[in-house]
Amino acid sequence: MRVTRSIAEVRDEVRRWRRARKRIDFVPTMGAIHAGHQSLVRRACAEADRVVASIFVNPLQFGPGDDYRRYPRSPAADRELLARAGADLLWTPDVGHLLPEGHRTRVHVAELSEMLEGDSRPGHFDGVTTIVMQLLSVVQPDALWLGQKDAQQVRVIEQMVADLKLPTKVRRAPIVRQRDGLALSSRNAYLGPEERRQAVALSRGLAVARMMLRQGERSSARLVAAIRWVWREFPLVQEDYVAVVDARTLAKVGVVRRRVLVVVAARVGRARLIDNFEWGTP
Amino acid sequence: MRVTRSIAEVRDEVRRWRRARKRIDFVPTMGAIHAGHQSLVRRACAEADRVVASIFVNPLQFGPGDDYRRYPRSPAADRELLARAGADLLWTPDVGHLLPEGHRTRVHVAELSEMLEGDSRPGHFDGVTTIVMQLLSVVQPDALWLGQKDAQQVRVIEQMVADLKLPTKVRRAPIVRQRDGLALSSRNAYLGPEERRQAVALSRGLAVARMMLRQGERSSARLVAAIRWVWREFPLVQEDYVAVVDARTLAKVGVVRRRVLVVVAARVGRARLIDNFEWGTP
Repeated sequence: MRVTRSIAEVRDEVRRWRRARKRIDFVPTMGAIHAGHQSLVRRACAEADRVVASIFVNPLQFGPGDDYRRYPRSPAADRELLARAGADLLWTPDVGHLLPEGHRTRVHVAELSEMLEGDSRPGHFDGVTTIVMQLLSVVQPDALWLGQKDAQQVRVIEQMVADLKLPTKVRRAPIVRQRDGLALSSRNAYLGPEERRQAVALSRGLAVARMMLRQGERSSARLVAAIRWVWREFPLVQEDYVAVVDARTLAKVGVVRRRVLVVVAARVGRARLIDNFEWGTP
Repeated sequence: MRVTRSIAEVRDEVRRWRRARKRIDFVPTMGAIHAGHQSLVRRACAEADRVVASIFVNPLQFGPGDDYRRYPRSPAADRELLARAGADLLWTPDVGHLLPEGHRTRVHVAELSEMLEGDSRPGHFDGVTTIVMQLLSVVQPDALWLGQKDAQQVRVIEQMVADLKLPTKVRRAPIVRQRDGLALSSRNAYLGPEERRQAVALSRGLAVARMMLRQGERSSARLVAAIRWVWREFPLVQEDYVAVVDARTLAKVGVVRRRVLVVVAARVGRARLIDNFEWGTP
C-alpha cells in the first residue's frame, strides 16, 4: 500500500489507473481505524480494481464543544489495518492542503443536514459535505463507500452526489458490531469499563424496537417509548435523541408505512454515540 | 457540432475524448449568444482539442424580481453561432435534469458572493456556483472559459474551483465591446434606441477612471466621483453601484495600491447592465 499526503500524487496515481481502465473505489475515514472501516475497504476491494483510502480528521465537521483535539489518532496502526484490509493507496492530506487560509466555499444540503445530528451539531454536515466534495474531486472514484452506522451522513452525501451530478456511486456497508451488539465506533475508545458495559443500551433498545416492528407495531411513539424504557436500566446513558424517521427524507414519521430509520444518539460519559437500523421496503 | 440535451451523452462523448487523450475545454452560457461568447469558444478552440459549450438559462441565479422569464432565448441562432465559433458539442440540459424535484444542495462561496452583485441580487451567486458545479461534474473539462465582463462571477467561480479542488483551470477572456464601447451582453437586447445610446455611459465612465489611474490618481473616492460625474450626462442611466475593489478579495479599497477592479452596475430602462476593468499588477 502506497501512502502519500500529496494531492498531486493521488491525482497522478488515479490518472494512471484510469488510463489502464481500472475501476477505482474510495473509502474516506477519520482514522482510528477499526473493523468497521476494514469491512468497507474489503467490500470495495471485492468490487473494484483499486481502492483508495483516506485519513483526514476534518476540523470543519467538529463544533466548538466537540472532540476535535482529543479525537483518537493512531496513524501507524491505521496504516497497518488499512493495508491488511487491501487498500492500494492511502491518502493522508494535511489540514492546510484541504483548508488553506482564505478557504471559503461550503457545500450545504438543505433540510437533510439540519435535523437529528445536524440539530445536535449545527454546521456538522456542511463540514462533512464540503470536505467529502474535495476528497471526491481529487480521487474521482467510481464508488464511494460509507458505513451505515452514520446513516444520516450517508443520506446527506447521497443527496449531494445526486444533486451535484458527481460521477460516483454511493455504496453503503452494514454496521459492524461487537459481540454484545455495540456498534463499532472510533469514539468507543472514550468509554470507561462501566460506560462500555452500559453503552450496549443503544443496540439493545434498537433490538427491542425491531422486534416490535416484526410483531406488527407501527406507532413511532410506542417504538420510541420502548427504547427509552430499555434505557432506564442504563443510568450512564443520556439520551440525545430517539426517533423514527423516513429513510429518504429523514422527517419524523408518526406511523411506520414506508422504509424508515430508527435512530438513536446518546452521551455515555465523554462519548457521544449513535446507532440505527433500517426497516421496511423502499 | 453535435447537440444533445442528455447528461449521459455528454458524459459518454467526454469519456471517449478523454481516452483518446484529448484536451477538453468548456464554455458555459445562458444562450442569447453574441460575439463575446463566440470569442470564448474561439479562445478555447485555440488551446483545446475539443470544446463543449452549454446553454442553460439557470433559474437559480435569478431573483424573484429578475428577468428569468423574459431573458432572451434564441436557440436556433445560438446553435449556428456556437458551431461557427468552433464548438464540437453543444449541451442544452433541461431544467428538470439539473434541478429535479427534491434538489436541495447549494454551493456557497462566502463573502465573495455577498458583495456588489451579491448585495444587489441576494442568492444570485449561490445559484451560479451550484449550477456551474453540476456542469463541471458532467463535462469535467481541463479548462473552463469565462468572460471578464462578469468579473465577480469569475472570481467567485475561481474560488470555488480552488476550494473544492476541482481538476479544472479557470480561464478568463477579455470583454468584447461594440464600437462605441458598450460591453456585449445578452441584456443589451432590452435597450430601446435612446437607452442604447445612453448605455455607453458605463464604458465611458470607466474610460475616464482608467485615464485618471494612468495619470497617477490613487483615490477611490475621486475615481468613483469622476464616473458619477460622467453619468450625469446620461439621465436614463440609474446607478446601482460604482466601486473600486481589490481584484482578489473584492473588498472596497480607499487607496489603489494592489490590483483592483473598477466595477459599475446600472439600470438603463428595463436592462440592468454591468461593466468593469482591471488595473494594476497582482
